[in-house]
Amino acid sequence: MADRVQEILSYYSSDNAGTKTNIARLLRSGKLAGTGKLVILPVDQGFEHGPARSFAPNPPGYNPHYHFQLAIDAGCNAYAAPLGFLEAGVSQYAGQIPLILKLNNHDVLHDDKDPMPSVTGSVKDALRLGCSAVGFTIYPGSTHCNAMYEQLRAIAEEAKDNGLAVVVWSYPRGSALSKEGETAMDVVAYAAQIAAQLGAHIIKVKLPTAHLEQAAAKKVYESIDIPIKTLAERVKHVVQSAFDGRRIVIFSGGAKSEDKNVFEEARAIRDGGGFGSIIGRNSFQRPKAEAVKFLQTIMGIYAGEVQ
Amino acid sequence: MADRVQEILSYYSSDNAGTKTNIARLLRSGKLAGTGKLVILPVDQGFEHGPARSFAPNPPGYNPHYHFQLAIDAGCNAYAAPLGFLEAGVSQYAGQIPLILKLNNHDVLHDDKDPMPSVTGSVKDALRLGCSAVGFTIYPGSTHCNAMYEQLRAIAEEAKDNGLAVVVWSYPRGSALSKEGETAMDVVAYAAQIAAQLGAHIIKVKLPTAHLEQAAAKKVYESIDIPIKTLAERVKHVVQSAFDGRRIVIFSGGAKSEDKNVFEEARAIRDGGGFGSIIGRNSFQRPKAEAVKFLQTIMGIYAGEVQ
Amino acid sequence: MADRVQEILSYYSSDNAGTKTNIARLLRSGKLAGTGKLVILPVDQGFEHGPARSFAPNPPGYNPHYHFQLAIDAGCNAYAAPLGFLEAGVSQYAGQIPLILKLNNHDVLHDDKDPMPSVTGSVKDALRLGCSAVGFTIYPGSTHCNAMYEQLRAIAEEAKDNGLAVVVWSYPRGSALSKEGETAMDVVAYAAQIAAQLGAHIIKVKLPTAHLEQAAAKKVYESIDIPIKTLAERVKHVVQSAFDGRRIVIFSGGAKSEDKNVFEEARAIRDGGGFGSIIGRNSFQRPKAEAVKFLQTIMGIYAGEVQ
Amino acid sequence: MADRVQEILSYYSSDNAGTKTNIARLLRSGKLAGTGKLVILPVDQGFEHGPARSFAPNPPGYNPHYHFQLAIDAGCNAYAAPLGFLEAGVSQYAGQIPLILKLNNHDVLHDDKDPMPSVTGSVKDALRLGCSAVGFTIYPGSTHCNAMYEQLRAIAEEAKDNGLAVVVWSYPRGSALSKEGETAMDVVAYAAQIAAQLGAHIIKVKLPTAHLEQAAAKKVYESIDIPIKTLAERVKHVVQSAFDGRRIVIFSGGAKSEDKNVFEEARAIRDGGGFGSIIGRNSFQRPKAEAVKFLQTIMGIYAGEVQ
Amino acid sequence: MADRVQEILSYYSSDNAGTKTNIARLLRSGKLAGTGKLVILPVDQGFEHGPARSFAPNPPGYNPHYHFQLAIDAGCNAYAAPLGFLEAGVSQYAGQIPLILKLNNHDVLHDDKDPMPSVTGSVKDALRLGCSAVGFTIYPGSTHCNAMYEQLRAIAEEAKDNGLAVVVWSYPRGSALSKEGETAMDVVAYAAQIAAQLGAHIIKVKLPTAHLEQAAAKKVYESIDIPIKTLAERVKHVVQSAFDGRRIVIFSGGAKSEDKNVFEEARAIRDGGGFGSIIGRNSFQRPKAEAVKFLQTIMGIYAGEVQ
Repeated sequence: MADRVQEILSYYSSDNAGTKTNIARLLRSGKLAGTGKLVILPVDQGFEHGPARSFAPNPPGYNPHYHFQLAIDAGCNAYAAPLGFLEAGVSQYAGQIPLILKLNNHDVLHDDKDPMPSVTGSVKDALRLGCSAVGFTIYPGSTHCNAMYEQLRAIAEEAKDNGLAVVVWSYPRGSALSKEGETAMDVVAYAAQIAAQLGAHIIKVKLPTAHLEQAAAKKVYESIDIPIKTLAERVKHVVQSAFDGRRIVIFSGGAKSEDKNVFEEARAIRDGGGFGSIIGRNSFQRPKAEAVKFLQTIMGIYAGEVQ
Repeated sequence: MADRVQEILSYYSSDNAGTKTNIARLLRSGKLAGTGKLVILPVDQGFEHGPARSFAPNPPGYNPHYHFQLAIDAGCNAYAAPLGFLEAGVSQYAGQIPLILKLNNHDVLHDDKDPMPSVTGSVKDALRLGCSAVGFTIYPGSTHCNAMYEQLRAIAEEAKDNGLAVVVWSYPRGSALSKEGETAMDVVAYAAQIAAQLGAHIIKVKLPTAHLEQAAAKKVYESIDIPIKTLAERVKHVVQSAFDGRRIVIFSGGAKSEDKNVFEEARAIRDGGGFGSIIGRNSFQRPKAEAVKFLQTIMGIYAGEVQ
Repeated sequence: MADRVQEILSYYSSDNAGTKTNIARLLRSGKLAGTGKLVILPVDQGFEHGPARSFAPNPPGYNPHYHFQLAIDAGCNAYAAPLGFLEAGVSQYAGQIPLILKLNNHDVLHDDKDPMPSVTGSVKDALRLGCSAVGFTIYPGSTHCNAMYEQLRAIAEEAKDNGLAVVVWSYPRGSALSKEGETAMDVVAYAAQIAAQLGAHIIKVKLPTAHLEQAAAKKVYESIDIPIKTLAERVKHVVQSAFDGRRIVIFSGGAKSEDKNVFEEARAIRDGGGFGSIIGRNSFQRPKAEAVKFLQTIMGIYAGEVQ
Repeated sequence: MADRVQEILSYYSSDNAGTKTNIARLLRSGKLAGTGKLVILPVDQGFEHGPARSFAPNPPGYNPHYHFQLAIDAGCNAYAAPLGFLEAGVSQYAGQIPLILKLNNHDVLHDDKDPMPSVTGSVKDALRLGCSAVGFTIYPGSTHCNAMYEQLRAIAEEAKDNGLAVVVWSYPRGSALSKEGETAMDVVAYAAQIAAQLGAHIIKVKLPTAHLEQAAAKKVYESIDIPIKTLAERVKHVVQSAFDGRRIVIFSGGAKSEDKNVFEEARAIRDGGGFGSIIGRNSFQRPKAEAVKFLQTIMGIYAGEVQ
Repeated sequence: MADRVQEILSYYSSDNAGTKTNIARLLRSGKLAGTGKLVILPVDQGFEHGPARSFAPNPPGYNPHYHFQLAIDAGCNAYAAPLGFLEAGVSQYAGQIPLILKLNNHDVLHDDKDPMPSVTGSVKDALRLGCSAVGFTIYPGSTHCNAMYEQLRAIAEEAKDNGLAVVVWSYPRGSALSKEGETAMDVVAYAAQIAAQLGAHIIKVKLPTAHLEQAAAKKVYESIDIPIKTLAERVKHVVQSAFDGRRIVIFSGGAKSEDKNVFEEARAIRDGGGFGSIIGRNSFQRPKAEAVKFLQTIMGIYAGEVQ
């Protein structure tokens, strides 16, 4: 049956059967299975921001098993985490949900204007832990961007050789960009394009604002009058910038926010043709029952069951 | 039959049969097949300048399939692009046109006086995607030139071992050169020589001006009175500087420009003994039918069918 | 029998049988065998501080055999040292006590605000010397943290492949932290989390003070009112920060101190749910008979035999 | 028959038969075959100085075939060039003259007080091109000397393993030396010693002046009164400094100069016990017939046929 | 028979039989065979200081054969030199004396406050040249100490795997130390400890003065009143600092000095329990007959035949 998943898989026709299988696993799991939409639970904040900032608001989250169970109970498409968190639970939850091993991470005990994450896991780790995909963060705009792109290149090659999917977190940061520029329309679209050209199967970016950061780009956006006023229009432009919709693009939730805002964003992602969300702190920093309900509302929005 | 292609192939007599076959594929494809001339479509601008600046003027270009089809419809000798763009279309267009995988790329979210591109693909990628050649950019004059030359050395060795051709974009840039110096006669000729000595099969340079940048070179050009007044003379000198015509040298089109200028340049390339053009933005930033006509006019100039 | 060791081993369910065996060896050796508690003797101070500062207070300690014998006589769970010290005695003491080869070390002939240890041994060395585990120091907060994390990543992967356990010394240091911050509550908890996420089986940290170093963390500790007033509470929070008790966390003794202080600390570690101590200078810088008695008192505290 | 070549080969008794064979090939080729003297044609100036500065004075030199033929016609012992120049002619001239692949090169589009050449070819390239030797440049005195020495170490090891000879261009340069110091007696002798200790079979240095650069060395030269007044004496001291004549030392010709000067230098090299010359610009920057005559006069001087 | 050599070999009980055999070769060669004492001839000064400074005082020393013969005639335990010097004579002297290939070297054409030697040979070279050991220099106190320690780690691992012995020259130098500090008692003892912990079989240090360099160490030396007034006491403390005599420690002779001083030093080394000397310039910078007599006097002191 030529459903939406089959259509999406056709975008990845140069990949081997193993990789296609794993992309299909992500698209055919959880409540959104078969819809072509994804909601992923990522829990790397213990590394990125520290344990208390991440888990003290909902202490069961200190336990690595908690997040596996949350992702399963909510019906997420996948659960993404660094090496330690996956190692600590994977045998108990083997085969219950597709896993994404995040291969690089950054902490804030030492921070930097031009950040450079550490590589903290390997494709081989992903294989021995039964993961469907590897995740990798790049910071376009950082003085270290070359190093990150080249690490990603090598990792993506090895992952594809071994039949895994490649998920890229593409977050513009660094001394060349203003704070506002990190989520500027032109910058986020560019970040999506870079990830796509580097061979990502799935691209995760932040939701863009209407700000335009780079002068040369601004001139083009204004002269051609590219529509970017509403969030849905901006989502649409990001999706277009990722090979005209031929690469899966999902959007990150960011810091904890009011539910109605998050739902509003999900509607814009849906209406702009985005493929879904990756939502961490907004889900695991509240009691599990509430989190499940919250995540399922978002899934309902994507599935068209909730307005 | 000892045609022009056979003559050109004789310049590469130290290469293995696989590499000669792939050079022949480039020379025997499209409208200019067999003439010894080449017109290549390169589409790396999404990475190099960003998606909107590259594709908003002609939005179908956001789609990676568009460029395969454009290159085929126009009768180009080859299509060159980074990993993502080739992966996203290669299965659909397998065998319809020779492909060049561009193995390094540079973005402008972080720019630099002394640029250094990232390696974004591998020879192994080129092989699994069925490419005829790999492409690699060097920036002679950059403080990072050693790193680029040494990356190229390793890539060229692996490519030749595996029967691929090596196309080198040799673009002088960096703190040691004035802006005008980047296209100075002496500098462009030197850049062509460096690429040839590094073992390139095909060399891509910018069209040179009559400016002379380096004092030691200027003295020689003036005392010996090397003819460099007309563009055709300058093209001839570049070709001479690339092993006296024993290496294929093609010229890049640069930013979008008036058609008559581009045609004038093609005539100079032809009259100076250049081997052809590599034309990106001037072709894919206009509607496809116009682009096909435009490219075919250039091919007509090279083929001697158009004055 | 489902004793405490079995329970602890269940936390490492993604590890292979070899690694589980070696973790079990550490937990089933010496006086504390089977209790789930550990007291380890580490002797790397000859490298870290110099020979006279380390061994002149008790000159038999210059001899590498001395420390093997001390650890055995006191009934420690394991003995940890750099390459040279282990090579110089391992054949004589083969199989008498589990060994941990410390794979990186730092000297103070050249010191640095942002320290970076040298890798001084390999997993292969650990295997040929019959060790149960490798030890590795990271300094979160150092500008070199990436290099250390990535060395650890590679070493941990190789160690796990070869059935060894991985012990991480996680000591925050570097220009980003105040001196007080190196043992701040938030920082030590974060250091434990980082080591756990990097895949450590056993984590060694310093005992934390009630100081809070980072503004963003401080806000959370204060708003949620995380209990950190007593040392036992702080130990408990560190253990929680290392996967809610699902990773072994032990605490270091530091410089020579009065015995009653050390015993007081051991009680706090025990009461806060810590897994034990790693005690160097406080044991080997006194005559052996005294050291054995001293160490056995600490073991008695952990075993519940001494109040 | 124990001729001079056999004697020289005895200096290389630790090398394998392949390497000895290739050293013998160099010594048994051309007009000077069997005399123990060498005249080598090197053509790397296209890369080092640019094409026009190198070849415009005698334009047939743009063509890579020209130099093969010149070296053969003049009866040189060998022809040395970078990868591109050898690849472009080696099949046509296979087996007609021993070849030396120069494995590193430096251009002046970006120059530096402390130069560092790029590695532009490999031992594997030398083998596939049928070369007898690899050539490598080191700049003792440069801040990058370690990097060059270590590249040479690895290349020499691989070359010797594969039965090739190793020719080292040892040219002192860098911020630690005055311009005059680059050809100072003590510095050139030291450069020859370094190349010899690094395992070079053949060492190429510049002709030294009587200047003494380093204070510690100057004291020794003056107190012991080492004879260095005439050029022949200085040549003799360089040869002595290269293992007392047990390593082949040849001298470079430098920039174009009057013939009588070059001949005078050749006589001094001969009289001082030097092994010959490597002469580029003085030969290929004049018409071929003149160049052949010029080179053969030098060979005559070495052979004792010309005074 | 349980002689002194057997006792020393027992210190290396974790090494394989090949390495033990090679340590035994060093201890059972020359005039001091079987005594447990060593006198080694090292000739790396041509590289380290330049040829004229090293060999002009006794010109036969320019010839690499000279030093093999000197070491043999004098009855040294071993001869140590860089790659070139060994390659140039090893076939003629095969098997006549144990050889040590010095794997890193440093020249003074470019010098540095924080020196870093170049790696100029490999374990594989040592094997093909029939050496018994590799030699490696570290400069504790240099900002580059990590790089040197890590090179040594890899070399020592490979050497031990291949049955070679590892000799470490441990010379404190660098911006963190005063000139006087380079031979301070605390610093030399620390340097010996570091080499031992890095896995050296034989450690070479300079003779220490009574100066104490580092404040933290000084406090310990003074409070415990470690005896370091006489040279013999200081030698004894260094030997103690190298695993209480369980590692071979030898002392370097330094620059040319009056014979009676050298003999006085040898007596102190003997009386302090040192294992011997490594003497270069004091031996090869005088006529061979004198050098043989000089070296044999030193050996006589170690053997107890000379007072």
